[in-house]
Amino acid sequence: MSTSIENILPKLKKVLKEDQVSINLTVRELHSKDESYHEICLPDIVVFPKNTNEVSEIMKLANHYQIPVVPFGRGSSLEGHIIPYDNGITIDFSLMDKILEVRENDLLVKVQPGVTRSQLNKELKKYGLFFSVDPGADATLGGMAATNASGTTTVKYGVMRDQVRDLEVVLADGTVIHTGSLAAKSASGFHLNGLFVGSEGTLGCFTELTLRVYGIPEFTTAARAVFPSVQSAVEAVTSILQTGIPIARVELVDEESIRQVNRFSETNYVESPTLFLEFDGNEAGLKQDVEFTKEIMEDHGCVDIQFETDNTARTKLWDARHNLAYAYIHGNVGKKMMVTDVCVPISELADAVVYARNELSSIGLIGGLTGHVGDGNFHAILMIDMTDAAEVAKAESFNEKIVHYALERNGTCTGEHGVGIGKQKYQALEHGAALQVMEKIKIALDPNNILNPKKIVNIES
Amino acid sequence: MSTSIENILPKLKKVLKEDQVSINLTVRELHSKDESYHEICLPDIVVFPKNTNEVSEIMKLANHYQIPVVPFGRGSSLEGHIIPYDNGITIDFSLMDKILEVRENDLLVKVQPGVTRSQLNKELKKYGLFFSVDPGADATLGGMAATNASGTTTVKYGVMRDQVRDLEVVLADGTVIHTGSLAAKSASGFHLNGLFVGSEGTLGCFTELTLRVYGIPEFTTAARAVFPSVQSAVEAVTSILQTGIPIARVELVDEESIRQVNRFSETNYVESPTLFLEFDGNEAGLKQDVEFTKEIMEDHGCVDIQFETDNTARTKLWDARHNLAYAYIHGNVGKKMMVTDVCVPISELADAVVYARNELSSIGLIGGLTGHVGDGNFHAILMIDMTDAAEVAKAESFNEKIVHYALERNGTCTGEHGVGIGKQKYQALEHGAALQVMEKIKIALDPNNILNPKKIVNIES
Repeated sequence: MSTSIENILPKLKKVLKEDQVSINLTVRELHSKDESYHEICLPDIVVFPKNTNEVSEIMKLANHYQIPVVPFGRGSSLEGHIIPYDNGITIDFSLMDKILEVRENDLLVKVQPGVTRSQLNKELKKYGLFFSVDPGADATLGGMAATNASGTTTVKYGVMRDQVRDLEVVLADGTVIHTGSLAAKSASGFHLNGLFVGSEGTLGCFTELTLRVYGIPEFTTAARAVFPSVQSAVEAVTSILQTGIPIARVELVDEESIRQVNRFSETNYVESPTLFLEFDGNEAGLKQDVEFTKEIMEDHGCVDIQFETDNTARTKLWDARHNLAYAYIHGNVGKKMMVTDVCVPISELADAVVYARNELSSIGLIGGLTGHVGDGNFHAILMIDMTDAAEVAKAESFNEKIVHYALERNGTCTGEHGVGIGKQKYQALEHGAALQVMEKIKIALDPNNILNPKKIVNIES
Repeated sequence: MSTSIENILPKLKKVLKEDQVSINLTVRELHSKDESYHEICLPDIVVFPKNTNEVSEIMKLANHYQIPVVPFGRGSSLEGHIIPYDNGITIDFSLMDKILEVRENDLLVKVQPGVTRSQLNKELKKYGLFFSVDPGADATLGGMAATNASGTTTVKYGVMRDQVRDLEVVLADGTVIHTGSLAAKSASGFHLNGLFVGSEGTLGCFTELTLRVYGIPEFTTAARAVFPSVQSAVEAVTSILQTGIPIARVELVDEESIRQVNRFSETNYVESPTLFLEFDGNEAGLKQDVEFTKEIMEDHGCVDIQFETDNTARTKLWDARHNLAYAYIHGNVGKKMMVTDVCVPISELADAVVYARNELSSIGLIGGLTGHVGDGNFHAILMIDMTDAAEVAKAESFNEKIVHYALERNGTCTGEHGVGIGKQKYQALEHGAALQVMEKIKIALDPNNILNPKKIVNIES
């Protein structure tokens, strides 16, 4: 244990209760990894604050002793965001898990950062409301805001950043600020909401979030459409988007991934490239949208399309899609999952998916493609044996190729998983001189570089 | 002419052509004011760059000589944004007015900052597309991005910030950066798009914008609904929003403002609080939405509702609403217009509008209320005789009361007009300690404080 850690420990125990400060190895191990393949690293201390004031006191101490701090939600990140590579203090927000207020008339909800997505939706259901962002994992809302999470519903409802109306943030020196207001729009001051969302704990710790929620739609229809190729499936989606039909979800799952789904979810879907779709709205409008969509799909060579309006059938269909990552994990025990995450302009998507499919086949690793094709964002899921250096190298080279392909077409290295440690090396290539702007902001707001160092920007200390 | 201005002038004439640099008094006067009541002030020099490289050279010189720079679109701002209170150089972007690329398949368009909203929409119509943000004035897109403009369509399509996919920005030292990419979503790096949109020329000059566009909806219906009180009108809108019916526009115009509209637009609308509405979508869905809306309106005491599906009638209806500001100006020659611009949580809107109406009546100035009620944003338009000190004081005190009312309810001092000089004094009250975060960002990116000084943040030099 370093001197500074020895010094801060009794101080932390003064501002927090005994059971809110842990140096237990098991606890530290639980905070040393996320759901990715990235190398683990232990924090020195894990703290469990119960309120904003405690977080502020922790930050004041950490800033004084210049000890790194990593905010931690549930550890479901996929690029090593919460792995404390410089050790130090991990702030676990699991005790700050209260839904503070449902402002039904304002379509807003105020929550603490440790509230999970499913916990919030369970509560909102009582009001006929729902929270739209669905990244698959049952992440905390604080973590989702920190990484600007998105997912299957983004094509209609937007990303996490679009839902954040206000954040209470504890800065590096312990100062507490609010980044927004309860107004639906504002032209007052710099857009701090947008800056802090997606900052991955490098600019501050979120202690309260005010989020937009929506009325549960009157009617919902799900569909599954089978295509002869990923290209024809993607082209069908592009055409639908151009007509302005408001699709609520549209996911592409390739042949190999359908095989994994069938095995894990005990379904017997045709093992061909498939679109999973969802539409919502009023009954009459929905009917017309669905008919028009069907026509467009058939024009693009769709060989089979099945609709599910019944709630149970719809849930079963989406569960199969949602369980895809677990299907890969379950079916490949002992291997680690690497997921690529580029996003390209929609017009480049069909070619990009074909490119990825060919590259994936050529390296001979187990893996499939899936994508939020309405946004141009797709993933290759690879299962790798981390003890096999050649396999790891192949997977990393594949990931790099996909990233370069996307950046050459003015896309992004990460559509929704975030930078963490895994995409840090691509920041200069993607952002060019804009990366220096980000570095200047980081240095201005966290001069001692204690907040989640080495993530997004890599400041030399 | 100061020494530094004398020094920079020949240097500017080296990087620009003779006719791109002006010290002519008439030209300077045209760049000394916007459409507001704020005091005018002359720039020393006005420059007219033709490309990014020229803007970069101008900024390098200005930074070297530490001369203030104000970027200028069309001067349609309402809070003195482009008035150069420290004199210096005004960069007029009127020669950078090219639509560079329409990426039909990506629903994106790339433009130079001097392109106006109507110019863009004229071009997009050829593709069956439109640009959604409509602030009333035919502003430039660079100016609209700088102020995070919004307007009548925001309730459905969002504010300017929601449309910006990428900006090319020239920073204070002449460095050129891109703030985004062409991908529909990204979790890569800090959200510079969001930070630069709404920065009102204080962080950089925009030289290229990539913007989202939309397919022109299949069907559109407009409506005009008359209510016995502003309160019942606002409550009706709140109920409609809660059901999730996607209204494309919803504007409130009060009794006095309807009188001004009737006089200016030669209409004979009932002089009672009125909602102007618009719905778009597919034919069947729209019909169902309209019927449901009508029911809700009647539940809230709507006394008359008229629908217009015909294109000409619809345009006439919206022209009347759009001409409201001009109706006030036209009907009150010699007076200047002051427009308040607070935005409150929707649940507070009905009371806020009643409060503003009562205050307005009590001070006895000519004025009316209008509002983007779907967003909780409303304006009081006051016509003031700037030579009458008592009248000016009354108007300013009214504005201040409205701002305090909104801030006490967790709203914002400006929903869409921006900070400029007029709302600078409320920034500390609204943002608290977050204002210091904004100041740190400003100092980090513009250490010599040359970019539109005194606006948004007031850095002591």
